[in-house]
Amino acid sequence: VHGESNSQKFRELDQIFYPRSVAVVGVSMDEQKIGSRWMKGFLTDRFKGPVYGVNPSGGKVFDLDIYPNLRSIPGPVDLVVACIPRALVLDLLDDCAAKEIKAIQFFTAGFRETGDEEWAEFEHEMVRRAQRGRFRIVGPNCFGLYCPEHGVPYGPWIPSGKTGSVGYISQSGGHAGKMLEIGLTRGISFSKVVSMGNGSDLGSADYLEYLAADPKTGIIGMYLEGPPDSRRLFEAIKVASQKKPVVVWKGGNTEAGARATASHTGALASSGSVWSAALKQAGAVEAHNLDELADTILLLQNVGRLYKSNIGIVCGLIDGGGGEAVLTGDACASLGMNVPTFTEKTSKALLDLLGQVGSVLRNPVDISQRYGDPGILRQTMELMTADPHIDLLVVYENADILSRFLPADIVDELNTVIISFGLRRAKPVVVVLPPGSMETRRLEIESRLGRDGVPVYPSIDRAAKAIYNISRHSVHGSTATPQEQV
Amino acid sequence: VHGESNSQKFRELDQIFYPRSVAVVGVSMDEQKIGSRWMKGFLTDRFKGPVYGVNPSGGKVFDLDIYPNLRSIPGPVDLVVACIPRALVLDLLDDCAAKEIKAIQFFTAGFRETGDEEWAEFEHEMVRRAQRGRFRIVGPNCFGLYCPEHGVPYGPWIPSGKTGSVGYISQSGGHAGKMLEIGLTRGISFSKVVSMGNGSDLGSADYLEYLAADPKTGIIGMYLEGPPDSRRLFEAIKVASQKKPVVVWKGGNTEAGARATASHTGALASSGSVWSAALKQAGAVEAHNLDELADTILLLQNVGRLYKSNIGIVCGLIDGGGGEAVLTGDACASLGMNVPTFTEKTSKALLDLLGQVGSVLRNPVDISQRYGDPGILRQTMELMTADPHIDLLVVYENADILSRFLPADIVDELNTVIISFGLRRAKPVVVVLPPGSMETRRLEIESRLGRDGVPVYPSIDRAAKAIYNISRHSVHGSTATPQEQV
Repeated sequence: VHGESNSQKFRELDQIFYPRSVAVVGVSMDEQKIGSRWMKGFLTDRFKGPVYGVNPSGGKVFDLDIYPNLRSIPGPVDLVVACIPRALVLDLLDDCAAKEIKAIQFFTAGFRETGDEEWAEFEHEMVRRAQRGRFRIVGPNCFGLYCPEHGVPYGPWIPSGKTGSVGYISQSGGHAGKMLEIGLTRGISFSKVVSMGNGSDLGSADYLEYLAADPKTGIIGMYLEGPPDSRRLFEAIKVASQKKPVVVWKGGNTEAGARATASHTGALASSGSVWSAALKQAGAVEAHNLDELADTILLLQNVGRLYKSNIGIVCGLIDGGGGEAVLTGDACASLGMNVPTFTEKTSKALLDLLGQVGSVLRNPVDISQRYGDPGILRQTMELMTADPHIDLLVVYENADILSRFLPADIVDELNTVIISFGLRRAKPVVVVLPPGSMETRRLEIESRLGRDGVPVYPSIDRAAKAIYNISRHSVHGSTATPQEQV
Repeated sequence: VHGESNSQKFRELDQIFYPRSVAVVGVSMDEQKIGSRWMKGFLTDRFKGPVYGVNPSGGKVFDLDIYPNLRSIPGPVDLVVACIPRALVLDLLDDCAAKEIKAIQFFTAGFRETGDEEWAEFEHEMVRRAQRGRFRIVGPNCFGLYCPEHGVPYGPWIPSGKTGSVGYISQSGGHAGKMLEIGLTRGISFSKVVSMGNGSDLGSADYLEYLAADPKTGIIGMYLEGPPDSRRLFEAIKVASQKKPVVVWKGGNTEAGARATASHTGALASSGSVWSAALKQAGAVEAHNLDELADTILLLQNVGRLYKSNIGIVCGLIDGGGGEAVLTGDACASLGMNVPTFTEKTSKALLDLLGQVGSVLRNPVDISQRYGDPGILRQTMELMTADPHIDLLVVYENADILSRFLPADIVDELNTVIISFGLRRAKPVVVVLPPGSMETRRLEIESRLGRDGVPVYPSIDRAAKAIYNISRHSVHGSTATPQEQV
């Protein structure tokens, strides 16, 4: 339940993510220039409203007239995308006020992040003009908004893709784009993304409050570079974490990293350990780099929160499972994850199924003595799923070794078995596909598993860390069941 | 300089890695069975000596007569490969003695590692018979030897590949095979590999002493599962580390991992922290999983030991370099690696080259304001190479983002620039190619860089850890220069 000012604020941000019309200021007759490419991103069937290009030189692009300025556009404009030199910014803001727009996002950079006092003051002036004009600024120094449901592209970068449940707020446009790229391969789909840049007007807390209230967003990821509005942000993280999982990666925690944040978005240095403690307190999950952020979000998207996380591991889908059993057992246990022994009943059944010679029957289970038989994998996973000691299954699949020893149809059948357990959802199934010598084949398998919602990791360490992250989270976060939340 | 017994021992092992003739016991007329596939691995131009198949049923395989037993083979046999049921092992050992072989390697499993006293005793008896017969046992429960120079295949797994400088001793046949698979993609080439299995006769210390003395081996990697002969092993590691880098990964350091080692190779549990301290004392490099072992070996192979490791990072080969600068700076610094600021001269030159707006000029350097220009990358790398604060260059290349924004020939030119700095060897160059949405293209670039000896990593964390590992090592290890050693 929101108070009036909260729902008013929600509507304000909602209008920005769902603009009815768009003007790209700084297009050119050259279709390869950044402004033109940005405009092209809106010119699809997905975006239903009018799209206007603006440049004082006029002309045409994509067979559309280019308007000399914002005021000359005939209809109303909700969102302005600005790709212009910084010296022209203040005039544009005055035009925006006259045009009664809802928001402007600036790809334009060169303000606070230069470290130059004059340009920092200029950035403040931009905000003051926007406030007077009663519209909001996204950025500056950013790629801005992405809302695939509404056909809002990620700038000139990623066209509108599949709509999903992940909301993502990033102080880096590069990391937001890379997360979208990773999502394309690994099957992470987004509700809304915002590259917030310097966040001079709308900041991380504003976007977070919006995504927390957004019914289309089930999971929230954040990349931050030490925002100045920390207290309000942590309050927002706490409130959001009661409703849906929030995963936060804070960059610039070292001297070398902080040097970069200062030049990148003008963010001030802040202590990593203070952040860690505050995030834990607020009930958020902390990630430590882009891979871990993606890994954790993928698991939340595909299996939801975990309330118990005793791991059962099956390996040796082909010869060499003994070493895999050691590697996977060590990786999980060294993070403090529980890889429990099976019940006596399960152990006996595994012995009957696999035999003792050359087998590791306890947990991890090495089925390599009976490799290449999808029925054996199915029965093993059946037994593990039924074991009350086990909450979650990890399958360690060396795709290159399988492909070297077995016909492709058998490898496909083995993956069909894995997918069937994933779809059944009796217990979550996570797959590790470590890179090796047959990468094309591995990518095919990853893509197939991903399409059916089975989360895939390139190493047991990364899988284990993601499991660890979302298990810990459940202790601090909401007590609602995963089905209710994600 | 070796004493007489040392050089005698060297010759003994050398004969095993370079057998003049081979018999595979347990072939079958079915060419797909494991024994036959093993035999086929020897039947190439690379292995010059005679290859015999043995099976009591006789018949033919690969157009060659199958001999009913070892004694019936007309010529001498140096190496026997055994793929037979364990119950037949003692008779075969008696035949080996009669045939005066040099060594036998057992794919056959089901001994000590079953945890069964009777079969543990049986394994002891095997060693006693081999000693009486004056030949050695490799394994049992292993894939045994790989010596590409001499055409000895990795069992039925990997045919003889490119010969290189990396020697690898693995208590897991699976991990040895996977390391060879990884090497095929990442450009790690091997002098000799041994999957030693239970190591009941020849153990890790024996192989290590041999590889330390082997002139063809420049770097030694080891995967161990808590051998019982630790004191001798640590002495061997200490001696070997004086001569060449030794990288060791010890599995089974957690309860779950140790449970697996017991069933896998019958290894006893041992403490991870005791191992870490002992490895450090012995001057070896410790790795903590297969990826880290491969990462570290790759760097040693391609750039040699590092005596100073101040890292200069270049990123933003395309838009989005600000976030990359934060990510890479944090990853290196949080491992304790130094990412120093440049000299004033370098900083000034970078400012002239790149301009201030939207740039990160300090270190990491973000060149994204001038992206897509191979000349800019060349000049940036030139300035960094000339900077006395910098010992090693890391290039962060988001191949998918480059491929999305730039024509393929420009991406190729950028990589040509990187390779030219790698080949010049003024300062080592390491490339990070993080996975994303265009994996096929990324693999092509990785393969091209790898062919020219540029080490490639999938994440900055893994690159930084490898750099950290070989930098620390130089403190403890030999004081010889890299050129003399690797």
